Amino acid sequence: MVNQFGKPILSPMKINRFLSFLLVIIVSLIAFSFKSIDPNVLLVNNISEFNKAVKNANPGDVITLANGIWKDAELVFEGKGTVENPIKLTVEEKGKVTLEGASNLQLAGEHLIVEGLVFKNGYTPTNAVISFRKNREEMANNTRLTECVIDNFNNPERQVQDYWITIYGKNNRIDHNHIVGKKNLGVTMIVGLDTKESLANNHKIDHNYFGPRPTFGNNGGETLRIGTSHHALENSNTLVESNYFDRTNGEHEIISNKSCQNTFKYNTFFECTGTLTMRHGNETLVDGNVFIGNGKPSTGGVRIINETQTVINNYHIGLTGYRFRGAFVMMNGVPNSPPNRYVPVIDSKANNNTFIDCDHILFGAGNDSERSQAPRTSQFANNIIYNTKKKDIFSIDADISGITFKNNLLDKNGETSIKEGFKNEDITLVKNEQGFLIPTSKKIKNKIAISPKVATKDNTGISWYSKADKTIALSSGKTIKVKAGINTLYNIVKESKPGDIIELETGGIYLLTKAVQINHPLTFKTSGAEKATILFERMMAFEIQNGGSLALENVTFDGTKSPDYAGNSVISTSKNSMLDNYKLFIDNCEFKDMVVNHSFDVLRVSKGTFADTISIQNSTFKNISGHIAALDKETDDIGAYNVEYLIMKNNTVTDLQGAALRLYRGGKDESTFGPFLEVDHNVFNNVGFGKKNKYGVAMSLYGVQVNDIQNNNFTNTKGLNMHLVVGEPIVNVVNNNYYKSGKIEVTGDQKYNVKNLYNTEPIFKEGTFELSDDSSLKGKATDLKDIGTISKN
Amino acid sequence: MVNQFGKPILSPMKINRFLSFLLVIIVSLIAFSFKSIDPNVLLVNNISEFNKAVKNANPGDVITLANGIWKDAELVFEGKGTVENPIKLTVEEKGKVTLEGASNLQLAGEHLIVEGLVFKNGYTPTNAVISFRKNREEMANNTRLTECVIDNFNNPERQVQDYWITIYGKNNRIDHNHIVGKKNLGVTMIVGLDTKESLANNHKIDHNYFGPRPTFGNNGGETLRIGTSHHALENSNTLVESNYFDRTNGEHEIISNKSCQNTFKYNTFFECTGTLTMRHGNETLVDGNVFIGNGKPSTGGVRIINETQTVINNYHIGLTGYRFRGAFVMMNGVPNSPPNRYVPVIDSKANNNTFIDCDHILFGAGNDSERSQAPRTSQFANNIIYNTKKKDIFSIDADISGITFKNNLLDKNGETSIKEGFKNEDITLVKNEQGFLIPTSKKIKNKIAISPKVATKDNTGISWYSKADKTIALSSGKTIKVKAGINTLYNIVKESKPGDIIELETGGIYLLTKAVQINHPLTFKTSGAEKATILFERMMAFEIQNGGSLALENVTFDGTKSPDYAGNSVISTSKNSMLDNYKLFIDNCEFKDMVVNHSFDVLRVSKGTFADTISIQNSTFKNISGHIAALDKETDDIGAYNVEYLIMKNNTVTDLQGAALRLYRGGKDESTFGPFLEVDHNVFNNVGFGKKNKYGVAMSLYGVQVNDIQNNNFTNTKGLNMHLVVGEPIVNVVNNNYYKSGKIEVTGDQKYNVKNLYNTEPIFKEGTFELSDDSSLKGKATDLKDIGTISKN
Repeated sequence: MVNQFGKPILSPMKINRFLSFLLVIIVSLIAFSFKSIDPNVLLVNNISEFNKAVKNANPGDVITLANGIWKDAELVFEGKGTVENPIKLTVEEKGKVTLEGASNLQLAGEHLIVEGLVFKNGYTPTNAVISFRKNREEMANNTRLTECVIDNFNNPERQVQDYWITIYGKNNRIDHNHIVGKKNLGVTMIVGLDTKESLANNHKIDHNYFGPRPTFGNNGGETLRIGTSHHALENSNTLVESNYFDRTNGEHEIISNKSCQNTFKYNTFFECTGTLTMRHGNETLVDGNVFIGNGKPSTGGVRIINETQTVINNYHIGLTGYRFRGAFVMMNGVPNSPPNRYVPVIDSKANNNTFIDCDHILFGAGNDSERSQAPRTSQFANNIIYNTKKKDIFSIDADISGITFKNNLLDKNGETSIKEGFKNEDITLVKNEQGFLIPTSKKIKNKIAISPKVATKDNTGISWYSKADKTIALSSGKTIKVKAGINTLYNIVKESKPGDIIELETGGIYLLTKAVQINHPLTFKTSGAEKATILFERMMAFEIQNGGSLALENVTFDGTKSPDYAGNSVISTSKNSMLDNYKLFIDNCEFKDMVVNHSFDVLRVSKGTFADTISIQNSTFKNISGHIAALDKETDDIGAYNVEYLIMKNNTVTDLQGAALRLYRGGKDESTFGPFLEVDHNVFNNVGFGKKNKYGVAMSLYGVQVNDIQNNNFTNTKGLNMHLVVGEPIVNVVNNNYYKSGKIEVTGDQKYNVKNLYNTEPIFKEGTFELSDDSSLKGKATDLKDIGTISKN
Repeated sequence: MVNQFGKPILSPMKINRFLSFLLVIIVSLIAFSFKSIDPNVLLVNNISEFNKAVKNANPGDVITLANGIWKDAELVFEGKGTVENPIKLTVEEKGKVTLEGASNLQLAGEHLIVEGLVFKNGYTPTNAVISFRKNREEMANNTRLTECVIDNFNNPERQVQDYWITIYGKNNRIDHNHIVGKKNLGVTMIVGLDTKESLANNHKIDHNYFGPRPTFGNNGGETLRIGTSHHALENSNTLVESNYFDRTNGEHEIISNKSCQNTFKYNTFFECTGTLTMRHGNETLVDGNVFIGNGKPSTGGVRIINETQTVINNYHIGLTGYRFRGAFVMMNGVPNSPPNRYVPVIDSKANNNTFIDCDHILFGAGNDSERSQAPRTSQFANNIIYNTKKKDIFSIDADISGITFKNNLLDKNGETSIKEGFKNEDITLVKNEQGFLIPTSKKIKNKIAISPKVATKDNTGISWYSKADKTIALSSGKTIKVKAGINTLYNIVKESKPGDIIELETGGIYLLTKAVQINHPLTFKTSGAEKATILFERMMAFEIQNGGSLALENVTFDGTKSPDYAGNSVISTSKNSMLDNYKLFIDNCEFKDMVVNHSFDVLRVSKGTFADTISIQNSTFKNISGHIAALDKETDDIGAYNVEYLIMKNNTVTDLQGAALRLYRGGKDESTFGPFLEVDHNVFNNVGFGKKNKYGVAMSLYGVQVNDIQNNNFTNTKGLNMHLVVGEPIVNVVNNNYYKSGKIEVTGDQKYNVKNLYNTEPIFKEGTFELSDDSSLKGKATDLKDIGTISKN
């Protein structure tokens, strides 16, 4: 302050100001001595300080968790804030406060804000990590959960259930959270309607980043569920807007809508192997969402069940899923359906939607003796279907007379058996500013637009928490050479890094007196032409543990040094539950002389373990007392199984006492897709005759969803059993030679395709067990090659 | 040294001596500066010092492990000592050196001594804790293992196999070791004969203390095995003398002799539930051993198979075992038996043995279509059989004309159907100085004597390592009162000690939002008349973990707050393998309203868990969607099962959708005894009709060894399936009322006893589900009480 001449003036007012300034300094210093700059901001360092702060919290207060790891922190944040002065729970520095171990958060009261909490390295001992209630009676309303993270905060038991976020009460907002890596049983986020205080809740769930959730292999892998069948006819009035669903592949229902009057807008579904499913409840609005499949298997769009559903302005591209995970599915219902089954579709519409290079749209899906009611008074209008790969993507599974088809455009090559409501037009795709391919034609009056509000990886979640993918692929690391000898393999693995390739000496002999534990992706291969041989003195050579994946190339396994006990295996999974799905690739390997005792398997898996892929190719199996793979450990009949994709191709299997394969998926749950099985171009010779081969067959397939068994040569081998159950399993047993072998038995009430069974005596080359060139079976495979194994070239 | 007058003389010789003495002092001091008193004694502090010491070791050297915990220590002790100067591996102070974590010891060379090592708190990653070889070619001869301890050094996976001590080479002595608590798969100690360098080995195994080994519930629980079926006809020439076997109950074969010319002398078998079995091989001598049963179930003596076996001077008292675990068993064999089956008994004798209060002696045991060859040219002579409880303890299961019976004495009430070779005498029991009851009579010419060399708890094992029993019984601790409320039970359990009794408030309501983990024996009971109620929000209320046992008394469990997922249970075992067998007692409890989703079980167990006893008594079960107990998780068909004794008595089961019981023991292994099942005085009303009840029966019993199902009232209930396999299962389905219920189906080729099936409509008292007093079923139970539930008084 200077006067007009530039000199400082000390007026009374200025003195007052100075005193005020001084007071502020003093107060600040006092406050600082309480580790707080603002009297209402309280930094707490431990649970008891937190609890005290919560107890004393007044509107406007901010409780701040001090930087560091909060271990075993079960926080109850309750209080009554006001609209103007909410009570806030936040962190000293974002990203520097983590809740670990047995931690969770319960919210109760009014006008609360929670911001910046990160849950990782642990799991909740209760049924929710973050719950919008303390108990059934005390819940949170008008509360905001923002910029929080739950990252791989999983119960180590795959089949032990919990939720990550349970939303109760009313008028809550859940926004800009980062939710990634749920791998145990249970929906990631639910809106609960089990008390009347939670009905017509007007919650808003927006701008959250739902990061990858891997295939769970059972029911209970949904990412968001609103309501349950018990409360399906209640209004929830929840708005789900601008959320990004990034490969949330837990199960078939990415979102399971189970209540009335919910809205789903501007959400993006990126490579999700499932659908936004209107499972129960009516009057849903699905508007302006984007589904990006990128041609990945089983990616889907929207599935309509129930009444008065509106599906408009959605954009779908590259979705390959079929049946319940089609790009668009309108289901058949159950007449007078009980609440937990399928209410028929009535008064619903799917209009103004865009489908680009999608493989399947279905009407009347699920039609069976129970779901016999076709959709009524419904509409499919003004949709655009553009396809370069497939002409007709429509499946008409039931009577469609109850659906009005109107003003839909197909590209110029598009076809459909639906009689009216479709026109062919010359459509071109033009990339818009957002990067979306937009069907464009003079006939399209209103230009297709994607809302600027649509979720992207950038505008969702949190800027301070990385969305980068941490997956490390097999064979992506460095190559490590390992000398032949005792336990050299065991020792090298201890030093290996994820993705490494362990290279064995050509013709080298490797003895293992300890089992090699595979904790990350590792490849083992012989460098030269002559396969290295691995012998092992423990009940297994390799044990795949949580986080591990395994590739074996050009290696021989010899069972002659294995212990004289029943139950050995070359590879076994962890006996404990594994949260991470694993991969197993076996290529050009040999497995031999595994008869020291009974039940010596090649692969032995445990309950609670799940393989994304098991691929066994170009390998030989000879003189083995157990099975190649018994993937039948999930016997609880709740829909669980042990493998998603199983590929067995171009192998020669001789003198195997057990079964080549056992796959089991029990129960009638329809939430999942697998197992998918491909058995192609193999030779099976003298398989399944051991006394301990329980089911007395060479292959036992129960509940498998896709059974492709083609071009194989079965000789002097026990039969195949296939039990078809759940959904509409696909069976193709085609072009196999089947000589002096047991029955092929298919049970269950589904259709199946078994054809071209030849019955020719094969000639085996000495020693190699490959079909002789003299074979009369040439030219009969689906690919016009020989039946049985084929040359790798 | 004094002269004749008593004065000291200092001669040149004395001066020399003095100088020598000085030299010794100086050398000792120098040695001491190297931390060693003797130049040949080397104290090593870590593995690399140990390895260096071993590398440089000369005859006479002593390598001493420094006090402390040696973690992850895989020791290879090899070297060439001499008879006069062996190389010794010992410890700084006995009991103060422990090998923990991934530790083991391999021996190779000549004239080694190992002394004082303690293995605990860990397990070997290889297939042996202590091995008398480094590899197949390099083994230890003339080596002594003494005063070593292996204490609960178990692989955490029950079904992962290892041995504790593997003996190879020749002329080794294994003495005064303390071996206790093996709980995973695999024989405790073996003598291996798999190379010719290990044949005719003259090993001596003496004065070892083999402490308790609990029932394993599968093959592979032997305590000592000498040879294998592959080498059964080789001479082992091993002497097993004066060892104490203290409740080594792993399986049916406490000792499995599988080679020729072995001797078993002066060993004591204390309450062992199995036999010294001459499984393979000939010319065994079993002489002067003591078998003490104390009336414990399944305790046995000696079992003869094969040729030229001599069983003499053994003393047996209080052995109750039957069939293969009788006090004495001479088996039937297989004509031209393959090596791994049963070679017929020829030229064998059992003479001069004493049996006091034993329940079973069998000739021709195991007679079946395969084992059809009765013993030949054998003898049973000069034995004394004294019994106060039972008149005739002989079972004649086959032709006994090939056995000469001679000069055997029975007490005056004793009987036998064997025509000759037995006389009754007035025998009295007189306690001798050692405390043994000795049959005494004028007719017994040579007084029965127990060798002073016989093993006792005192003269075996190690003085510095306690043999005290650490087991803590249920309800042996203090009583803790717990207030009703949310998680009060969870919190109290965290503070509880093994054996404690948690007392609930009469009529109290207890809600669990976390599963209670039972890590030690705990009892929960309501103090007053009105049962407390426990509700639970997790998939289980109680989880029994390794080391836990549970008793529930007078408590109600209500399933209405449990999660809406398939697969809940009131009690579950750990999902991971449990080494410790557990006990579960449920008495006077109520289980109700467990229908929130399908497959809600009362008890849900996991593979790799084993219960000694599950007892469910005086309880009611009402409105439940799953099973009471599905004990069928061991599906590998290698003889494993989930429970030894299952008792279900005086319960009322109503509206149970699943099965009351599923028990499964697969495979044909004969190494174990169980399961034993008793189902007595229960009411089953509307049981088993759920769609998810896989086998469609109220009880599914597969491979169960004893099936006692008596005095029950089955009404409007699904059937019973019983598959009889393995051994000679006992079936008594007697005095049951069976009204409007499914079939009782018994399969398998064994005999069974199903009789007195009544078919009367029962009258249920309102609400209580007990039979009305008016019931016409009175007086028909085996105990002359009512059929169905009975009053607890």
